[in-house]
Formats: sequence, C-alpha cells, structure tokens
Amino acid sequence: MSSAVRTIDWDGGGVVLVDQTLLPDRFALLRIGDTAGLCDAIRRLAVRGAPALGVAGALGVALAAVHGEDVDAAAAALAGARPTAVNLAWGVRRVLAAREGGAEAMLREALAVRDEEIAVERELARRGADLVLSLCDPPVRVLTHCNTGALACVESGTALGAVVEMHNRGALGHVVACETRPLLQGARLTAWELGRRGIEHSLVVDGAAAWVMHTGRVDAVLVGADRITAAGDVANKVGTLSHAIAAAHHGLPFVVVAPESTVDAAAETGDEIPIEERDAGEVLGWGGRRVAPEGTAAFNPAFDVTPAALVTAVVTERRVVRPSRGERLDAAGAGEPHRP
Amino acid sequence: MSSAVRTIDWDGGGVVLVDQTLLPDRFALLRIGDTAGLCDAIRRLAVRGAPALGVAGALGVALAAVHGEDVDAAAAALAGARPTAVNLAWGVRRVLAAREGGAEAMLREALAVRDEEIAVERELARRGADLVLSLCDPPVRVLTHCNTGALACVESGTALGAVVEMHNRGALGHVVACETRPLLQGARLTAWELGRRGIEHSLVVDGAAAWVMHTGRVDAVLVGADRITAAGDVANKVGTLSHAIAAAHHGLPFVVVAPESTVDAAAETGDEIPIEERDAGEVLGWGGRRVAPEGTAAFNPAFDVTPAALVTAVVTERRVVRPSRGERLDAAGAGEPHRP
Repeated sequence: MSSAVRTIDWDGGGVVLVDQTLLPDRFALLRIGDTAGLCDAIRRLAVRGAPALGVAGALGVALAAVHGEDVDAAAAALAGARPTAVNLAWGVRRVLAAREGGAEAMLREALAVRDEEIAVERELARRGADLVLSLCDPPVRVLTHCNTGALACVESGTALGAVVEMHNRGALGHVVACETRPLLQGARLTAWELGRRGIEHSLVVDGAAAWVMHTGRVDAVLVGADRITAAGDVANKVGTLSHAIAAAHHGLPFVVVAPESTVDAAAETGDEIPIEERDAGEVLGWGGRRVAPEGTAAFNPAFDVTPAALVTAVVTERRVVRPSRGERLDAAGAGEPHRP
Repeated sequence: MSSAVRTIDWDGGGVVLVDQTLLPDRFALLRIGDTAGLCDAIRRLAVRGAPALGVAGALGVALAAVHGEDVDAAAAALAGARPTAVNLAWGVRRVLAAREGGAEAMLREALAVRDEEIAVERELARRGADLVLSLCDPPVRVLTHCNTGALACVESGTALGAVVEMHNRGALGHVVACETRPLLQGARLTAWELGRRGIEHSLVVDGAAAWVMHTGRVDAVLVGADRITAAGDVANKVGTLSHAIAAAHHGLPFVVVAPESTVDAAAETGDEIPIEERDAGEVLGWGGRRVAPEGTAAFNPAFDVTPAALVTAVVTERRVVRPSRGERLDAAGAGEPHRP
C-alpha cells in the first residue's frame, strides 16, 4: 500500500477499504454503499484491527445517514458485527451523537474520527518507539502477534507502527512475526507490511514464540489491544496471553500499544469483557479445506485477556501506564505523561 | 485403526506402516522394501513419534541386513533422517549390536524391539493414568499437544495412551487437543484417534492453550517427549514449552509420559540437544499453498526444550521422576518406583 492509500476511507458517496482477505496475493479496494455490505466486510474480516474498526463504525453510521437508511438499525447492526471490539461501538456512538445536525453533520463527524485516528497513529508510533527504546538497547529485536500495522488502522498502525518508527530511526534489529492462527493475520498481513518496508523479519508458528524467547532471539514483545480495562487487563487476539506469560517468565518487557479509544474504563477486569467465539470451521481447517476429521468439535475464542500483572506498559497517544506496577487506566491523568 | 493394525510392523520381507500423511482423510498402509524408502518415510513424517521411530530404526537396520544392503551406510542414513529423535538412533544401535549373528539375528533383535515397545506402551498407559489420577480428581480434563497416541507408537501410545486408559477407567472428562502447527498432528491425528475411541474432545489453535488454562477448562497438561536429559529437561514438539510455562503459571500439573528409551542420560541439560530446523515452507504455507508473501523467511524449529523446573513429573514404564523437585533421571534407580 503506498502512503497515499488508506486502509479505510470515505470516497464520495461510500466507504472504500482495502480487502484484507485477498492479501498478500492481491491488493484490491472494496467500495461499499450500504450498512449491510459494511457489516459483512467487518464480519468476514475484510476490514479488521481495533482502530480501523473505530473508523469503520463512524463511517458506517454516516453512510447510513447519507443514504437515508434507518440510522438506529444501522448503528445496532454495525456495533453488533464484532461484539468484543470496543472501538467499533465507540465509532458508532461518536457519529450517532451528531445526529441532531443531520446527515451532513454526521458525515463531518465521521471524517473527524478518521482524521483524529491518523493523528493518533503518528503519536502512538512515536511514543511506542520511545518507550521500547527506554527499556531495550538498540538494535531492538521484537516479537509481535497478529497484525497491528497500517492494515489494522488507517495510515500507520499501533504496535507495528512503533516497530516501523524504530526501523526509521535505525534502532530496529529484527522482527519475529507470529503467524496468528486461525486466520494467519501475521503470516498474511504483518509479513506483507514488513516486507514492503524492507524490514528484516522471520515468521514463526505461534507455538514457537516461547522458544524464540528462551533462545534469546528477541528483546521485547509488542502487541496491540482490542480492549483494555481500568485495571489494565488487555483483551487482544487469541495467543497474546501465551506470549505475555512467556515474556514474564523470560524477563522480557511485554508492551501494549493502543489508542485511548481502546480503554474501557467501565470494565474493571477482563472478567467483564465478553469474548467472541468464532466459527469452529476456522480451527478445523483453513482456506476452505477441512483438516480435522468429521465429528471433531473446536473451541475458537477470537480473543484472550492478559492480566494486568503481566503487562509491562500500555502506551497510548497520551500516556504510558504500567499495569504490572499497579497503575490504573481510569484515574484522571492516570499514568505518567510520556516525555521523551 | 483396529487393534489388529499396528502403526509400524514387519511383514515378510519388508516394513509396513500406516502412512500418516494421508490421515484423517484416508487410512492406507505403506510397504517399504529398502532403507532409502524408509528414510524418506521418516523424513516426510509418514511415520513419526519417538517410540514408533525407535521401532522404525530397528526394523530399518534389519531390512538392510536381510536385503544385503551396506548395513553401516543404512544405519547412518536412518539415524540421520531425524537427528533430534534419540529413539531412532537407539533402535538403530540395538540391532547393529546383533550384527555378529547375521541378518537373521538382527531381524530377531528388531522384532524384540517391537515387542518390548508394545509391552512398554501398556505400562506407560497404566502408570501415566495412575500418576494423573494421584494429582487430579476425576473426571479429569486434559490438554495435550501433538500426537502421542497409537499413531506415534506401535499399539497404544504414550501420553494419549494414558488419556485413553483414564477414559477406559471412567475417569476422563474432556480432552483439549492443540492443533500443533506447522504439521497439525493434533488436528489430523490426535483428533482422529480420540474420535474413533468415542472420547469427547475439542480442537484449539496452539495459541489458545493458555486461555484454555486461564478459564479453568483443563486440570492437567499431558505430553510425550522426544528426548529427556539427565537433569529432566524435555525436548518435545515445538509449542510444548509454551504450554509448560502456562501450566506452571496457572498451577496445573505438567506431566510427560515417555519410555525409558527417550532418556538421554549422556546429556545433562537441553543445551546439549541439537534442535532440528525443518523446511521454512511448512510455516510459510498451509496445506501446500503459500500464505506468506514472497520474500518472507521463517524460523521453523521442530522441537523446543522445556526446562526441568517446569516439569511436574516424567512417567516412564519403570518409574516416576519429579524434575521440578530436583529429581534426576540418570542416577541408578532414580525416581520413586511408582506403586499405585
């Protein structure tokens, strides 16, 4: 994706997004003209990643308003398309709040959500890189999970944005990308983003991450988040908890880079976060081909929750919070303002 | 597989084995008449699992002797086909030691290796079940990795043999089988073995194991081993270390069920175990289709090593050793003789 292409954007009368189900084989834009089409794109992960979903929720409500759809029904459908993703519902609410001004005001608000997101991403990249470089000596070797790059956002990303920023500063050693079963976002999307930026990387199966740490191949683990509670518990792509436990065991920093919009201060701990269970078929096979025998069932949680005690730092566009030291995300001005 | 079919056996002039690359879609036997064919079957994992590889090594040397091949060259080729699997080299050595008696004596020794293996499997199942039931109240819910059942052995298995034994005693609750990327032995083989025995099970991606433990879905983790050092470090399928760290974090027993032939008393710790790196293509793709973009490299260790401190118990056909308590596997009569 050239820097001119955004992962999700507004284009005249509709929403335009990079169809991520086609990557890395094919780069194609998807033009969407109604709520049903956008809900479908969200459900089948054509657009994914917490920040991009926030913008999708916002643009989706504006789309419904501009096209004269029932805005309440559209908002409910959009927010329910991925129930664990707090950003999606947040984007929906932001634009709903502008409904008094009519469709034009709602579209203006949705475009403001997009522009703020881009500004946030730049801050996340800068602050995330600063934080990691305050913990590890360059060249820093990083392990990451799922996709948290430009494809998860609008322009540059969260955790992977910080990785790219370290690369731009000449402070990055190597990236170990976990493939991230069942949908292989690491193999398909993160590897693609790293490759096109010329960043040296290796792909590993998720189960190899602990061995990568044990054998001293990485200095830090960097991930994004789908939801962060007041106490600092972090819901993120399934597999994250396993990496966090292994990082703590090996004494490596476990750093979460995510926007403030991911913070759900109304939830105290992860016990209050509903964990979406996705279709068993994703685990029983891949790419349309079944691998497991007939009769075998699967347990397929989309996310897991990493307890605050395992989280070295949460970096947002405004602050650095250290949940493992007992710092909370809900207090006004909580966390140290990060001054590099 | 009916109980009459063995995973690997001698049949007139050759070796017969279940071609595990075809499961679970198709059950087929492969008849092999020379060392090259057997080495190929070992390398492409048509036969796999430490105990089955021990029998393969033994039968392979006998095969070479019976057919008049160069026995030394055959032994070297067989032992080198999977360098980390200590049982393979052990089976080869056992039969080489009988070479003074000629081909007939070597075949007799190879068949003895097979028969001893079957007797060992029965003891492992019994002792493994006893040990788990001494730690957990029934019905016991177990998480397992890779395939350690009949397909990894000759007739009944190691860790999965103990699981089946608990099922036969009415003491088993549920089995969570990790799919075991990259080659999906859990999804293809373990699920197939559990299904045909009518054992209730769910498949999960490897990255979900820690979340399965965190949410209280299992009581113990049971795995096999490819090599165990004097100090109790355990080399096993990549992903095992991650489960062991998560089990320790959640206070769950981590139990290794493996034959004495897996013990490599000459190695003090895991640092002395060579870890086989397999083809990057296994990680870069899935089901023969490349998933990662061109230009992306992979790190693909076949095994990892779980430090003794994380191993609650090693159960062999003779004893129970508790490495996490500092018990060693090399002392004569080391470990408590297990008397249920």
